[in-house]
Amino acid sequence: MAETELRGVLPYLISPVTDTGEIKEDVLAKLVHHLVDSGVHGLVPLGSTGEFAYLTWRQRYRVVEVVVEANAGRVPVVAGVAATSTLEAVRQAREFEALGVDGILAIMEVYFPVGEKGIEDYFIAVAGAVSLPVVLYTNPEFQRSDLSVKVIASLAKIPNIRYLKDASSNTGRLLSIMNVVGDRLKIFSASAHVPLCVMLLGGVGWMAGPACLIPRQSVQLYNMAMSGQWAHALQLQRELWGINQIFAKYNLAACIKAGLELQGFPVGNPLAPQVPLDAGAREEIRRALKKVKAL
Amino acid sequence: MAETELRGVLPYLISPVTDTGEIKEDVLAKLVHHLVDSGVHGLVPLGSTGEFAYLTWRQRYRVVEVVVEANAGRVPVVAGVAATSTLEAVRQAREFEALGVDGILAIMEVYFPVGEKGIEDYFIAVAGAVSLPVVLYTNPEFQRSDLSVKVIASLAKIPNIRYLKDASSNTGRLLSIMNVVGDRLKIFSASAHVPLCVMLLGGVGWMAGPACLIPRQSVQLYNMAMSGQWAHALQLQRELWGINQIFAKYNLAACIKAGLELQGFPVGNPLAPQVPLDAGAREEIRRALKKVKAL
Amino acid sequence: MAETELRGVLPYLISPVTDTGEIKEDVLAKLVHHLVDSGVHGLVPLGSTGEFAYLTWRQRYRVVEVVVEANAGRVPVVAGVAATSTLEAVRQAREFEALGVDGILAIMEVYFPVGEKGIEDYFIAVAGAVSLPVVLYTNPEFQRSDLSVKVIASLAKIPNIRYLKDASSNTGRLLSIMNVVGDRLKIFSASAHVPLCVMLLGGVGWMAGPACLIPRQSVQLYNMAMSGQWAHALQLQRELWGINQIFAKYNLAACIKAGLELQGFPVGNPLAPQVPLDAGAREEIRRALKKVKAL
Amino acid sequence: MAETELRGVLPYLISPVTDTGEIKEDVLAKLVHHLVDSGVHGLVPLGSTGEFAYLTWRQRYRVVEVVVEANAGRVPVVAGVAATSTLEAVRQAREFEALGVDGILAIMEVYFPVGEKGIEDYFIAVAGAVSLPVVLYTNPEFQRSDLSVKVIASLAKIPNIRYLKDASSNTGRLLSIMNVVGDRLKIFSASAHVPLCVMLLGGVGWMAGPACLIPRQSVQLYNMAMSGQWAHALQLQRELWGINQIFAKYNLAACIKAGLELQGFPVGNPLAPQVPLDAGAREEIRRALKKVKAL
Repeated sequence: MAETELRGVLPYLISPVTDTGEIKEDVLAKLVHHLVDSGVHGLVPLGSTGEFAYLTWRQRYRVVEVVVEANAGRVPVVAGVAATSTLEAVRQAREFEALGVDGILAIMEVYFPVGEKGIEDYFIAVAGAVSLPVVLYTNPEFQRSDLSVKVIASLAKIPNIRYLKDASSNTGRLLSIMNVVGDRLKIFSASAHVPLCVMLLGGVGWMAGPACLIPRQSVQLYNMAMSGQWAHALQLQRELWGINQIFAKYNLAACIKAGLELQGFPVGNPLAPQVPLDAGAREEIRRALKKVKAL
Repeated sequence: MAETELRGVLPYLISPVTDTGEIKEDVLAKLVHHLVDSGVHGLVPLGSTGEFAYLTWRQRYRVVEVVVEANAGRVPVVAGVAATSTLEAVRQAREFEALGVDGILAIMEVYFPVGEKGIEDYFIAVAGAVSLPVVLYTNPEFQRSDLSVKVIASLAKIPNIRYLKDASSNTGRLLSIMNVVGDRLKIFSASAHVPLCVMLLGGVGWMAGPACLIPRQSVQLYNMAMSGQWAHALQLQRELWGINQIFAKYNLAACIKAGLELQGFPVGNPLAPQVPLDAGAREEIRRALKKVKAL
Repeated sequence: MAETELRGVLPYLISPVTDTGEIKEDVLAKLVHHLVDSGVHGLVPLGSTGEFAYLTWRQRYRVVEVVVEANAGRVPVVAGVAATSTLEAVRQAREFEALGVDGILAIMEVYFPVGEKGIEDYFIAVAGAVSLPVVLYTNPEFQRSDLSVKVIASLAKIPNIRYLKDASSNTGRLLSIMNVVGDRLKIFSASAHVPLCVMLLGGVGWMAGPACLIPRQSVQLYNMAMSGQWAHALQLQRELWGINQIFAKYNLAACIKAGLELQGFPVGNPLAPQVPLDAGAREEIRRALKKVKAL
Repeated sequence: MAETELRGVLPYLISPVTDTGEIKEDVLAKLVHHLVDSGVHGLVPLGSTGEFAYLTWRQRYRVVEVVVEANAGRVPVVAGVAATSTLEAVRQAREFEALGVDGILAIMEVYFPVGEKGIEDYFIAVAGAVSLPVVLYTNPEFQRSDLSVKVIASLAKIPNIRYLKDASSNTGRLLSIMNVVGDRLKIFSASAHVPLCVMLLGGVGWMAGPACLIPRQSVQLYNMAMSGQWAHALQLQRELWGINQIFAKYNLAACIKAGLELQGFPVGNPLAPQVPLDAGAREEIRRALKKVKAL
């Protein structure tokens, strides 16, 4: 089986949920069609932006199922697996593989602090549970585990651990990782990094929530970077970064959901106790989207 | 209906689970009998020590069910409700009330940062979902939400929010809270505080993992404090604190489980990726338990 | 030589400085007389409250000189030595000893992180530079070095390191320290702890900024604790804690200075860029001082 | 007067000091000659690498004096001003201007937390004290003050505040700053960023400790970036980053000093209680310097 090669712009999908907890399946499917039609290179349900941390297993499963069906094999689907417990993470990964996803975004949640050995074992177990390519996801701010460069280097030896998505905001860390793992791990930027910088350093793309709102512009930026048009790319990157600056001020899921509502996708509110954006923040987003012609 | 008054020593129960995820029901029931026979004033399944963060809902439900059945109404059972999502927390609280628990320990987990309004709403929703007394649980280190004194003062006005268990290690904070809420909230110590200090300040007892291992000694300390024998109590407190000092060095659930194994309860290991204690740490615990005649 | 035994209430003196950097010597001397007349057991110039971190060496020296002269041997004077560099700390300690102080409060400031060995060496060097008793001062929040229990245990073996003042707010840590060092180190509370709790645990007193404003009340609380009147003491402690609660909200030096101004000591403002309290905060302090009859 | 335009590679100079606190003037002068001969675009005494935090005012003054004299007007000298107190910072800035430096690197140290107003006032006061161009320096890790984008935008309106050097490791933050201040502030990278990324984003150079050890290579990298040879530049950047990776593991001043010793500059040890590198770390540095032909 020719394995999917992941690269390019992979939006982190939001999870549209009603106030009583039902997945808004039509809205999610419509978003999938829109993003794929806009040229994105893959789809990532159940990242941070997808509010995995607020969803029950049943909800998570349905989100992935709807995305896989709506996508219908057009682009790779990489589903987020996230748990504190190894047993549970392994179970999730297997169920998503059975659903037909093309890759696993492996997220480790932490309650009691875990040593490097425990962290490594968690990711090895998830990778061992599936035959799919695995993306390591580190997000020290929200997940309280951190993958040290040493642990990453060790995990890079597992054949199907093939990608890393780092949400640390420390771009130099990516270069340190590249210097250690060489080509064994391919690096995706998160929205905490400037994607263009990561591309300059040798990254293969980005997985990020904002790409839900500016898919075409993101793909254009990616293409510019790939063809070495750095000066032009910088100009576009600076414009698009205005979107990130707003998202950094507010709750991320609330922002993406508010922006999608403005674009005509009735995705609803972030899950309580997260609060929806107020009118002022919505107006900020409206203006920012207009500025980059995403509205 | 005469509502249960919570006070005294309420051990945080561990959750004994097999490697394949089954609750070891007999072991849990045996532990319940042992603790009640040792004089504890209540039981708290699904606190931090109970590894709630590592258990599926089905596992959590079974833990509480087994505890309620084994206890058979002898002492109050206060079940831990913990979620990031309000909807899910409300559902858990209702199901535990239906199971017959006597109180709810309300824990808020956080992924994206939540403002004070969101935090307050979460606890109000949990309290509104049940007719049971609710214990607010704050643990800034592990849960990443913090209940400010202002939010606590506001929540203290909800009739069935009646207790606070603070795991901040900042004992002065308890006095600040007492100064603001007066008698409307009764304060329980956590193992991060010195219980005797909290009793001196007017606390009504403690909810803590170590009490699983030293129930009789804990009750004795409580009785000394209640009768104002501060000098004697201090001597006992200093001895018992040696146990806490060990637990602060290692993973908490791993310690309590290792200690219970030494005491003849085959509770098994902490849930992976947490790692069991090594031989050296087990020996430390063995010596510490011997020293306080808990082995 | 009969060495001074430190115990009781030792106020952290503020440092009154004009806008152009001159020490207000008369005001400082007047404050010293007032505090000694109020029964305090010692005086500590150049603690955190004394804004040592904002003063040049020349200013620091003059502050200690004025205090020693005004005190005229009535109570022990313990001067704060604070530096990032060992060489500089040693020099300060020697100069203060030559000035006639009775003890050194040893503070370590940190810029680049220092390992345990470096921390230990710093304090050993300061202790070795003088024949005076040394008080170890830990304040993890402001000083970014932390004295681990292990390092404290090791330092406790140095003959003239005889006291510890811990500003960590973690009262349980004090009991852990006591369990390890026994009688070799005597423990002083800081204002981040509830002094009464520390006294219950075996502490010998407190060194704190608020005692500048409520010296008589502090001495009364100390006496109650020493004679085991815990119930009465708690009532007084709760009243006095209201003062601490205000100080925790604002800049500490600004609060103490504002309170002293209200009490008739024209001590001036905290050193820029610290900003003086606004009218609302001053009114809060006025009311709090009135409530405990300190105005 | 034609004001100096700062750009390019400005090494943070180490401060060579004997064990008894004397500045090793000959060694410092020799280092200045070597760096200027290697093509660096400026010199920065008294940055973090220069251990300003460990030096008395007299030592700091002598360091700057020696650098200004040895440089003899060949490249701009930007001297670090660092204090907690505004009065002291202003005094330092004036004395350095009188010594003939070409710019001020303005560093704010913090003991008690300071609000945005206090932070802003501090930098305004320093800028107002001199007619030289001022470089804002933010280093949240070591200095505990942080310049928010909002404060930076406000400070950018002060005519002689012309540059920013950010040591936050968050490269995206630089783009946010650029988006807000436009051309009013020019941005220098610190060693916590990948210089090449900052150049891509529009930065004008870097101020960093490692450039002491690899001045020629740094200038080469700068020239490649300026001429848009991004692919070549990346290759060199990856090689040079190996040096930063080592420095991130150990004490920064210790590393640069150890490297300079290997290169034949007897600069001595970092100031106690910082500890010199052990043999293993020295060997790592030796190999890393050899690899980039800096030894």
